[in-house]
Amino acid sequence: MISLRKTRLLNFTQLYRIGQPYKTGAVVLPVDEINFTPSAAIEGMTLTTLDSGIALTISLSPQDRVYGLGQTVGPLNKRGKKYRLYTTDDPVHTPDKENLYGSHPFVMIGSKSPYGLSIDYPAEICLDIGFTDHNVIEITIPSYDADIYLFRAQGHTLTFKDIVKEFLLLTGAPYVPPKWAFGYQQSRWSYPDARSIAQLAERFRKEDIPCDAIYMDIDYMDNFKVFTVDYNKFPDFAAFTGKLKQDGFRLIPIIDPGVKIQDGYDVYEEGKHKGFFCTTKDGSLFQAAVWPGLTHLPDFVNPDARRWWGSLCKRFLDMGIEGFWLDMNEPSIFYTPEAMAAVFDLVSEMRNNPEIPKRCLQDMLNNLSNHRSYFHSLHHRTPSGARISNDKLHNLYGTLMAEAVADAFMENMPGRRYFLLSRSSSAGLARTAAIWTGDNMSWWEHMLSNIRMLMSLNMTGIFYNGADIGGFGCDVSPELMLRWMQLGVFCPLCRNHSAFGTRRQEPWAFDAQTLNCLRDTIKLRYALIPCSYSEFMRCAADLTPFIRPVMFDFDCPFDVEDQFMYGDSIMAAPIHQPNATGRYVMLPQSSWLLCQALTHDNWAVSALPPGVHYIECPLNTTAFFIKENSIAILSEPMSYVGQREIETLRAVAFVTQTARFTYYEDDGLTYDYKKGVYCTLRIEITNTNGQYYIK
Amino acid sequence: MISLRKTRLLNFTQLYRIGQPYKTGAVVLPVDEINFTPSAAIEGMTLTTLDSGIALTISLSPQDRVYGLGQTVGPLNKRGKKYRLYTTDDPVHTPDKENLYGSHPFVMIGSKSPYGLSIDYPAEICLDIGFTDHNVIEITIPSYDADIYLFRAQGHTLTFKDIVKEFLLLTGAPYVPPKWAFGYQQSRWSYPDARSIAQLAERFRKEDIPCDAIYMDIDYMDNFKVFTVDYNKFPDFAAFTGKLKQDGFRLIPIIDPGVKIQDGYDVYEEGKHKGFFCTTKDGSLFQAAVWPGLTHLPDFVNPDARRWWGSLCKRFLDMGIEGFWLDMNEPSIFYTPEAMAAVFDLVSEMRNNPEIPKRCLQDMLNNLSNHRSYFHSLHHRTPSGARISNDKLHNLYGTLMAEAVADAFMENMPGRRYFLLSRSSSAGLARTAAIWTGDNMSWWEHMLSNIRMLMSLNMTGIFYNGADIGGFGCDVSPELMLRWMQLGVFCPLCRNHSAFGTRRQEPWAFDAQTLNCLRDTIKLRYALIPCSYSEFMRCAADLTPFIRPVMFDFDCPFDVEDQFMYGDSIMAAPIHQPNATGRYVMLPQSSWLLCQALTHDNWAVSALPPGVHYIECPLNTTAFFIKENSIAILSEPMSYVGQREIETLRAVAFVTQTARFTYYEDDGLTYDYKKGVYCTLRIEITNTNGQYYIK
Repeated sequence: MISLRKTRLLNFTQLYRIGQPYKTGAVVLPVDEINFTPSAAIEGMTLTTLDSGIALTISLSPQDRVYGLGQTVGPLNKRGKKYRLYTTDDPVHTPDKENLYGSHPFVMIGSKSPYGLSIDYPAEICLDIGFTDHNVIEITIPSYDADIYLFRAQGHTLTFKDIVKEFLLLTGAPYVPPKWAFGYQQSRWSYPDARSIAQLAERFRKEDIPCDAIYMDIDYMDNFKVFTVDYNKFPDFAAFTGKLKQDGFRLIPIIDPGVKIQDGYDVYEEGKHKGFFCTTKDGSLFQAAVWPGLTHLPDFVNPDARRWWGSLCKRFLDMGIEGFWLDMNEPSIFYTPEAMAAVFDLVSEMRNNPEIPKRCLQDMLNNLSNHRSYFHSLHHRTPSGARISNDKLHNLYGTLMAEAVADAFMENMPGRRYFLLSRSSSAGLARTAAIWTGDNMSWWEHMLSNIRMLMSLNMTGIFYNGADIGGFGCDVSPELMLRWMQLGVFCPLCRNHSAFGTRRQEPWAFDAQTLNCLRDTIKLRYALIPCSYSEFMRCAADLTPFIRPVMFDFDCPFDVEDQFMYGDSIMAAPIHQPNATGRYVMLPQSSWLLCQALTHDNWAVSALPPGVHYIECPLNTTAFFIKENSIAILSEPMSYVGQREIETLRAVAFVTQTARFTYYEDDGLTYDYKKGVYCTLRIEITNTNGQYYIK
Repeated sequence: MISLRKTRLLNFTQLYRIGQPYKTGAVVLPVDEINFTPSAAIEGMTLTTLDSGIALTISLSPQDRVYGLGQTVGPLNKRGKKYRLYTTDDPVHTPDKENLYGSHPFVMIGSKSPYGLSIDYPAEICLDIGFTDHNVIEITIPSYDADIYLFRAQGHTLTFKDIVKEFLLLTGAPYVPPKWAFGYQQSRWSYPDARSIAQLAERFRKEDIPCDAIYMDIDYMDNFKVFTVDYNKFPDFAAFTGKLKQDGFRLIPIIDPGVKIQDGYDVYEEGKHKGFFCTTKDGSLFQAAVWPGLTHLPDFVNPDARRWWGSLCKRFLDMGIEGFWLDMNEPSIFYTPEAMAAVFDLVSEMRNNPEIPKRCLQDMLNNLSNHRSYFHSLHHRTPSGARISNDKLHNLYGTLMAEAVADAFMENMPGRRYFLLSRSSSAGLARTAAIWTGDNMSWWEHMLSNIRMLMSLNMTGIFYNGADIGGFGCDVSPELMLRWMQLGVFCPLCRNHSAFGTRRQEPWAFDAQTLNCLRDTIKLRYALIPCSYSEFMRCAADLTPFIRPVMFDFDCPFDVEDQFMYGDSIMAAPIHQPNATGRYVMLPQSSWLLCQALTHDNWAVSALPPGVHYIECPLNTTAFFIKENSIAILSEPMSYVGQREIETLRAVAFVTQTARFTYYEDDGLTYDYKKGVYCTLRIEITNTNGQYYIK
């Protein structure tokens, strides 16, 4: 018999507590100090006790949508698939995959009168959302301890936006990066040394392509040892960082959790000495093979280990680094020594016994990476001193790593915003960091996936996010690169990243026409930053998703999953099909101004009535829409964010009655905006019988 | 210096002969008896001699489409990708894959005034179609011997249909299956024994779901030995086949090329004794591991070996079998003994030397299947007696296997049509067999891929084709199953097939509502057979693609790649997105009658003007269009094709002036139609001021 208690929180949240849940840190309210009352059932759901946990069953109406889950493959409406929330490093995001790097057990269910559901539980949760039976959601949790939050109003109708806001009141306001993070960012596995980075930076300026950040992938390190810099490649790293910053470039090094097992390597020695590494159940140090070979994994569940990790980050902060990307923190494990020994043993057996099917070896090798058994074996020490298997709180690892790094920034750069991407994430990460969506491919399908994750991640509070533009794995075509960059205009994180061994993806890696179009597209993004940043900061303050489905704002005759609202004024409708000269769009409710931008200041505009249209969008054009009675503002594009003061703003507006826009500006670097140190400019345009009045 | 000669053929074909090409059999004209004249260049292309072959370079205009290539992943317009025509068994058809099971080096290039290009060469051809440079096609052939056919009219404009027709005049008229092949077909890996097949057949009749064929996957054999039946599973196979045929079911066994190496196994002994197996370069028998373990591969290049293979097929024909599906004939090779020994050796080395990166082993294992080196090592004997590496004529293997089996049918069932699917194919296969498109997945993306391959394969003469409905690999959702079956209404081959270990896909494997909808959908297909068969036979006689892009028939304002013409009257517009309640359609030139079929005789119809529309299509509805002034005819659905005489035809027509349809009927089983033994019924409906006159 499980224990079930409930209480009411916030505006319309009901918390159902099952057993004694682990304190994940996902929720910012002090829910443990609340008085619960016993409950017999969870409203609107069937709670079943299983042999090894609990199951929640929810009925769906035929027209119900299911939104949420943050980072998963597949359509925006999650109905029709099975999901397994268990953070993992899977580099091939085919449509059948059940889990990726993040775990966000928050869904919204319904159509006209939706409700929400969030599960605060740190490990595997399985969701069958209308897959086995189209009209049933079945959620299984392998535990008798979990917090279930239900977001459902009594007596009045909620919107999807209301539910997201309530969820963010519960889990905390979204992370806000420095303003330069809205610039274009260039990455590659790898720009391995100072010389290649300096040449890259110079090339951006020479080609007149704006850029704000350059990423350092794993090859900058000495032998993949975390918190080292190979000084053969970077003779004076601090000076190099400073020089680049003068030229308007931030350097963003990668940080992996695995600490190479190597005598004399200070990080290894110190971590081992202080007991900051994860162990096996019996307390011996756990060994995981990743890029550096065999490593130990820091125990981020231990607050002292987190502080220690933060102190190591300070080495980079002292050399002028203001941002990191945290990789491999699901955690990813290529293999363990024990698993490799088992492979060797099987091969020995096969030599002696030809009857053993050869597929056994292939299967074993295919399942070598991130085998579930590793996470059973990997153990943490909880604050109470007890050992706990990683499998029991698996999804927290990346988030706790990000917290360690974020704390280091806040301690060492007090009052200043930091830039932090984490590959792995779980509920609560949205407060401290952003994510990129991992190892996608140069597939048109993954561009569409990017569009959908932008929206789903915004629902979970990760407003600032993006995919690797052009695709990480596989070779990109110039057309896909360009179409994806046109989407990138409307991705908060606009980073071009690609894998070792693939076709180069820098803007000049293609033909002259593609280079020119990419330049124009990136400049368009920069020209729109006054608009984007104003809207982002407003949404972050309002706890309203910055990027959201059209269905959040409008009554739509049917669902569209390849258009999205970008703030309140702009609707993006990227081309995501090869060889397309245009696309279908659905314009909901009002008229819209179609903007076909050739460059940042050469747009064709035309008003279209509501309904279904096919719009032309040649390869050199970025097409998007401005809502009726709305305004988009632009500035001259700069080479990098903050290069000059903005002196002139341009407004593109579609006004039949009255349109308003609040332009927002702050220092872009600190949290002073929270103290009211920012300025706004309210722009109002009125159309009175064809005469426009501007205030 | 390469030798280049040219000649004119047919209506507007130019043949450029480079060197002395291998006689592939792709072309039915006696081109070797033609007088060639020396040529300095290939019209409209740049021919370059490389170190190891030749390259053809072709310029593309921005608006040029590139159609063709038969079976490849990706969009219908092949522009923007690299392709490698080298038949292979790759079970994961992700968008980056360059080659699949078939090789069809035929493309059509252009927009308003297209031209065509076909390369008659039996091994690897690489095509970079606007990938490296959006405006350039680069074709490389690793040989100095090839026939290049150019289809280009002088002085007048060709259509895409004209070019396909000319290509089919050159390579032969398409294979025509027996009429029962237009029924629904059920497959699974596996229905392993008589009992499960009998139960399946009974269930179809009990559930009132029409079905004409049941497939037998590899488990029917005794230990995977080709041309055996496990008599524990099938005590009296001939009687069983006969009984099923009485009930309207054809049994279709799988045939793989690999012959198990096992003393006493007659096929092995005979093949070895007569020298019918492939060898290595030095003449020793080549060993390939496939399903049965180590096997020898029959040398289908040798006409005597083909005849021998045909004589083995006769065993099944004598037991009432009228159709086969030929699998693994790329050929697929899991590994060779030498390759496996190399794996063992690497592991031994790794045990001794921990510095060897473990990824080496993983890479070796990942590349074990179908490693290119196997095909270099595999050797055939040409009719002249010389040994030739499979790599030099790799793409012919599957087609020659199909030819061996087709010859057996024609010899043993004279005058009767046979049913023959081959997984691997190359130019020329279209005359003797059909294909299914191999191991797809239960992905929505692969349903779209199915739509595109239907059209591309029709361009290469494989009119009768289809994908595994519901998807072979991965688990299918009831919604995907149903939407795919709605597409299946318009797939010539309508086969539901799924892999071992995946969710069951028989129509009753889901909920009651899905079962009812699947039944209605399959009955709709059967009701349309009078229409489908009439149109298919007309198209086969006319050498006009039965299924073709809308752009082949109409002047379209933009390209659509997810609608297709199904004969002359019907345009299919399947729903291929999850959770969709409808879709966008483009209706070209004329008005169209939207048909929303709930069942075979319960349709809502409405006329729509030309242009862009969003049409409603609830999950239980199959939506398609009838062209203005066109007719679709239907009969009552039967439990299987030919169960009863058709006594009544129903016509659904959209007539504003005059509509005509020629209904065609023949015995459905023989080639007597070629001698004029068929009947036609010309239906004409005239609308005179709202009064309809029917002739």
